[in-house]
Amino acid sequence: MRILVANVNTTQSMTDSIAAQARSVAAPGTEIVGLTPSFGADSCEGNFESYLAAIAVMDAVVSYPEPFDAVIQAGYGEHGREGLQELLDVPVVDITEAAASTAMFLGHKYSVITTLDRAVPLIEDRLKLAGLDARCASVRASGMAVLELEEEPERAVEAIIEQALIAVRDDKAEVIVLGCGGMAGLDEAIRRRAGVPVVDGVASAVIIAEGLVRMGLSTSKVRTYAAPRPKTVVGWPLSAVAAPSAAAPAVAEVAR
Amino acid sequence: MRILVANVNTTQSMTDSIAAQARSVAAPGTEIVGLTPSFGADSCEGNFESYLAAIAVMDAVVSYPEPFDAVIQAGYGEHGREGLQELLDVPVVDITEAAASTAMFLGHKYSVITTLDRAVPLIEDRLKLAGLDARCASVRASGMAVLELEEEPERAVEAIIEQALIAVRDDKAEVIVLGCGGMAGLDEAIRRRAGVPVVDGVASAVIIAEGLVRMGLSTSKVRTYAAPRPKTVVGWPLSAVAAPSAAAPAVAEVAR
Amino acid sequence: MRILVANVNTTQSMTDSIAAQARSVAAPGTEIVGLTPSFGADSCEGNFESYLAAIAVMDAVVSYPEPFDAVIQAGYGEHGREGLQELLDVPVVDITEAAASTAMFLGHKYSVITTLDRAVPLIEDRLKLAGLDARCASVRASGMAVLELEEEPERAVEAIIEQALIAVRDDKAEVIVLGCGGMAGLDEAIRRRAGVPVVDGVASAVIIAEGLVRMGLSTSKVRTYAAPRPKTVVGWPLSAVAAPSAAAPAVAEVAR
Amino acid sequence: MRILVANVNTTQSMTDSIAAQARSVAAPGTEIVGLTPSFGADSCEGNFESYLAAIAVMDAVVSYPEPFDAVIQAGYGEHGREGLQELLDVPVVDITEAAASTAMFLGHKYSVITTLDRAVPLIEDRLKLAGLDARCASVRASGMAVLELEEEPERAVEAIIEQALIAVRDDKAEVIVLGCGGMAGLDEAIRRRAGVPVVDGVASAVIIAEGLVRMGLSTSKVRTYAAPRPKTVVGWPLSAVAAPSAAAPAVAEVAR
Amino acid sequence: MRILVANVNTTQSMTDSIAAQARSVAAPGTEIVGLTPSFGADSCEGNFESYLAAIAVMDAVVSYPEPFDAVIQAGYGEHGREGLQELLDVPVVDITEAAASTAMFLGHKYSVITTLDRAVPLIEDRLKLAGLDARCASVRASGMAVLELEEEPERAVEAIIEQALIAVRDDKAEVIVLGCGGMAGLDEAIRRRAGVPVVDGVASAVIIAEGLVRMGLSTSKVRTYAAPRPKTVVGWPLSAVAAPSAAAPAVAEVAR
Amino acid sequence: MRILVANVNTTQSMTDSIAAQARSVAAPGTEIVGLTPSFGADSCEGNFESYLAAIAVMDAVVSYPEPFDAVIQAGYGEHGREGLQELLDVPVVDITEAAASTAMFLGHKYSVITTLDRAVPLIEDRLKLAGLDARCASVRASGMAVLELEEEPERAVEAIIEQALIAVRDDKAEVIVLGCGGMAGLDEAIRRRAGVPVVDGVASAVIIAEGLVRMGLSTSKVRTYAAPRPKTVVGWPLSAVAAPSAAAPAVAEVAR
Repeated sequence: MRILVANVNTTQSMTDSIAAQARSVAAPGTEIVGLTPSFGADSCEGNFESYLAAIAVMDAVVSYPEPFDAVIQAGYGEHGREGLQELLDVPVVDITEAAASTAMFLGHKYSVITTLDRAVPLIEDRLKLAGLDARCASVRASGMAVLELEEEPERAVEAIIEQALIAVRDDKAEVIVLGCGGMAGLDEAIRRRAGVPVVDGVASAVIIAEGLVRMGLSTSKVRTYAAPRPKTVVGWPLSAVAAPSAAAPAVAEVAR
Repeated sequence: MRILVANVNTTQSMTDSIAAQARSVAAPGTEIVGLTPSFGADSCEGNFESYLAAIAVMDAVVSYPEPFDAVIQAGYGEHGREGLQELLDVPVVDITEAAASTAMFLGHKYSVITTLDRAVPLIEDRLKLAGLDARCASVRASGMAVLELEEEPERAVEAIIEQALIAVRDDKAEVIVLGCGGMAGLDEAIRRRAGVPVVDGVASAVIIAEGLVRMGLSTSKVRTYAAPRPKTVVGWPLSAVAAPSAAAPAVAEVAR
Repeated sequence: MRILVANVNTTQSMTDSIAAQARSVAAPGTEIVGLTPSFGADSCEGNFESYLAAIAVMDAVVSYPEPFDAVIQAGYGEHGREGLQELLDVPVVDITEAAASTAMFLGHKYSVITTLDRAVPLIEDRLKLAGLDARCASVRASGMAVLELEEEPERAVEAIIEQALIAVRDDKAEVIVLGCGGMAGLDEAIRRRAGVPVVDGVASAVIIAEGLVRMGLSTSKVRTYAAPRPKTVVGWPLSAVAAPSAAAPAVAEVAR
Repeated sequence: MRILVANVNTTQSMTDSIAAQARSVAAPGTEIVGLTPSFGADSCEGNFESYLAAIAVMDAVVSYPEPFDAVIQAGYGEHGREGLQELLDVPVVDITEAAASTAMFLGHKYSVITTLDRAVPLIEDRLKLAGLDARCASVRASGMAVLELEEEPERAVEAIIEQALIAVRDDKAEVIVLGCGGMAGLDEAIRRRAGVPVVDGVASAVIIAEGLVRMGLSTSKVRTYAAPRPKTVVGWPLSAVAAPSAAAPAVAEVAR
Repeated sequence: MRILVANVNTTQSMTDSIAAQARSVAAPGTEIVGLTPSFGADSCEGNFESYLAAIAVMDAVVSYPEPFDAVIQAGYGEHGREGLQELLDVPVVDITEAAASTAMFLGHKYSVITTLDRAVPLIEDRLKLAGLDARCASVRASGMAVLELEEEPERAVEAIIEQALIAVRDDKAEVIVLGCGGMAGLDEAIRRRAGVPVVDGVASAVIIAEGLVRMGLSTSKVRTYAAPRPKTVVGWPLSAVAAPSAAAPAVAEVAR
Repeated sequence: MRILVANVNTTQSMTDSIAAQARSVAAPGTEIVGLTPSFGADSCEGNFESYLAAIAVMDAVVSYPEPFDAVIQAGYGEHGREGLQELLDVPVVDITEAAASTAMFLGHKYSVITTLDRAVPLIEDRLKLAGLDARCASVRASGMAVLELEEEPERAVEAIIEQALIAVRDDKAEVIVLGCGGMAGLDEAIRRRAGVPVVDGVASAVIIAEGLVRMGLSTSKVRTYAAPRPKTVVGWPLSAVAAPSAAAPAVAEVAR
């Protein structure tokens, strides 16, 4: 079985660590393929980047030349999963939902520890839409930016543990969910320190994706996620018509 | 005051009728500018097109060369509003929310009549996220595709009225919301026949956008909708690096 | 267009400042008429006064001798709006709902800062009934009584800002709503200090009322807000049969 | 123990039948006193009459010359209970809440059968505010006006049973609540025919009011229902300053 | 009228104090019979003991040799009430629900003060299922184990009052509910100190059970609580086939 | 890895078919052990049987003499999962939750098709407590009793498909969940006919249980599901002190 694991940002090293985390729990015979979008931001920390990532991930997946059995969208709290479900016949698993769903088997309430405070409402919104928020005790920010997780893993672990302990004590969380694809691999260290189960979204998504394939289940096509109706779509896939380069202007100059 | 009214699909005639509807309620001195995305689908009827539209609308708005005072996203139930709010300092009003918000001043419960059944869950999800669903009696599909609204306006009016009457009788709606940007201008005919107030999202959004500007209010920048953090964004704006043409492949070939 | 702006208490100076706030955002050609009830309390700070105000406002509005195009009920969190909607064919806008509805276009969550702690549950209840509570981060009391707002505006601004800053920091509000008709005109000072958009209910209500009139929309009459059924009503309107005077006993003597 | 049972309309015969129903379940030693408001409508079938009743009931209760131990507000889905709680130190029980609360001990879900369709949203709103709606399967209208219940009891029973059976079959109600003070005494006939427990609000309220008194419990005065603050209240109590007569104009002439 | 009051644990002295509390509010002519399960834990402080109690209470009730008019399950937040409702034709009242229901007549919000922190989620879950959680401000733990309540009543009162005061101040509770059958009789002392109404579940349940009997109401048998279908049940009632003794192993040895 | 799959009723053939279904999706190396309770009902179709099953399953699991890695409770909508989580250190997966959780990855809304109408509220309650109800379109009864599923599989498939089609058409379900352990193995036939994904709880639970073990995750022990406190438990485990036989009286004789 081949599972595509799509990073939502353009940072290749993050794709690599996500794929490594996926492989660490994959069953024998499961091939994990890491995908990096060809356009978008080097980290997603807000709606603008997330919407761009939604399209960039769809672009990367539909451009992938080989057959595959399932897709994992490996961004925490990001947009786009529903679009992939429309475009594909194979199962699509979002790590936000995979982690929440897994956490709910382990305790009465769970908390998510994510990166920056500004990402908290995005995650809350995704969990609400997914109908997985009823037992979410809190979503807390560690204050670490996405790329800092890679650069300073020790500090990241400390910052996450600090919030995890507050979540357990004050919010009454019994399980901690790591709320960023870039936290893949930190679960073991945090579990040891926080004394509660720590759920990683990428690992959870691999289990669920493999399981759906084994059970012969895939996205229902009768309504919400039916294939797009035939129509004229200008400029799709974007990567086929665009010639983006690293020299393209950063958003800060464009936006303000 | 100049307000940009962004269509979410690439159909110019629909941009024109949306802009005309906007002008019909705009105050003297308000200039309405209709924007048509340079890429995306000729109609949005699902998540794939909607995510593409989210990016295409942001692209069109940030590429607009003149100053403006507010932006209206004129697609019903579409993705993307939060991204615009991050990118801009001026108010952003989504017609889905403008219409729901307006309807709630007119009756105890409202229903939305939209195009195809597959769009219903998207609209329900947007209303839930916006926190405007508590008094929504139902979202009903007329069965008319987006482009059919323009081609067959009489049949569209009949199909919408049929569902509106069911919504009033069975779902206990007291107000009807027209759930598609392409329905702009049909409100008067439907109001006459259905006997209840009929709310058009584009008109409502113009009122709200003008009002926010008059009150000197705009998007809060302290958390969720703060400007994107400075970072490397490859291929943005997309229209600057892409050369899309009408000959680009339709999604149906790509997707299946 | 003529809009009646009904104060909910009998304090004429408060009616004046509410009307002034309304005029400051009204469009050219909009006439604002301030109404003061002929009976009731000099400030509403609980359910007893609020229910009395509900009837007194209806009494004042139906006794107004000239035609009018819309009515604004300018009490925050008060009873009575539904009764006005039944009695009138023109739009009725409550400032509680107008402010909440406006705030939701400006940020992910909003908080209301009101007067006394005992008013908090009333406001929470009104927002819940209005279906506008899902994105309300908190309702907080400044500790200022209604009439103190007029007497000590500087202290009022300080007390409101103190709670606004707590709401932003702890409750994650991104927008502040001024939760009392008597706070009209304080928005600018608070906005400057709190660094987030500050919404005034009276101003918001004027925008919405004018907009409904411009769009030709008014209260649905098919169910909840149909005109009262013909029946014998003893003592209505109350002002026509009563001869109240300022010498009437204060409630404190009556109640305990 | 003396319990005041306040009718919400001015129809004396209805006060009598409500008081009779109350006496039929009252414990030995409980004196039931029926109160009829001195102003307001001869039946409450909407918000206008209900708000007037709220004040008229408070007026009647605070004007009652003898001591009493509890008050029952015997209108289904009406405004005003919170005001009574502020004005009094003895327990106040609303029949809407008493009936719902009782029904929840008898089955998984209950339905309310009320009078006219226009009363349904009022009842739904009261149950939502009371936090007693989670197990309410439906609120259904029998189509009988309030005064018709007295005039045509047989037809009323048939109309109520028809809706009760639909509620049991389609809405999965297991208990029926009679949603009008004027239905007092019909419970036995309906219970026999519908095959499910039928709860009468007046009887339920007597049980609860007696129980609160026996347990020495009354309204908390620490926040929401604290006594009104001392202030100038013009024209209160209204009955002391008004000289209403049956010749006062019916609302229909006033309102339109 | 005879009411069975079933303790959920095997501690006879607790049954005695629960029965005494019940008798203190029972009407003249009501006979209170305390039942102690013949198997299970000497105190219920978690799901394991609670499930065992559910069966042990059913066993004790169906084995009771005399007729009775109602049953009270006197454990706070425990499992089992629905099973009793299926097995019996007389009313069944759970003290968790009786107390919450009573508290809601006394204030805008109530808080429950229970024993150990681990019991909090059980109580929250029971209130959610009962649909009585909307006005629950909080469930707080005093830190006292069930059996410590009897052994150290003064310390218990102090610990409960400490949490009650926090609930009133921080959670905005206006009423306190004693969240353990073993707290029966402590209400008066706590009420005096906390300054808010204090509701005891056993007393509340007696009032409600007596009231249901007086009104001729009992559990609806049309759906959820219909009598069990005829079938082969091995080992029921358990007390008829078992020979448990105090020498049976404590769970700690079994479980780990 | 060894997984115990506990049937909730005493019917051995049902244990066998559940275990067979579990084995059909289990990974190589996973040993599935079917457990049948030694007391309780031959089918669970209500709360009485379900509570008995809760205890009987705990009894069977703690009496199992060999080590094991996870436990699956294979009854749909039954009580008891929380007790198992307290007693054990290995993961516990309930098929109700496993199926709902899996269905949510496959479509926007799912419906459960169960056996008898009386089981519907139990399932609704379990899903609500599990926080997995937000996207549940409906729970529908096929009208087949549990044991009839085995006796008449063709009729069962027809009855389930009939309700599944209604759920898809009227309730807008996009995924069907088989709501009874006894339906294990019917999924393929129903999927073919209903045209939507059909989720079996036993299979889903195996995937999840295996996954938790592979990820090294188990129940959090910090609060709700901490091991029972050391205490005297009379008559536990029940099977050690009881001598039940098939000749024990059926509940029908006991209960009425």
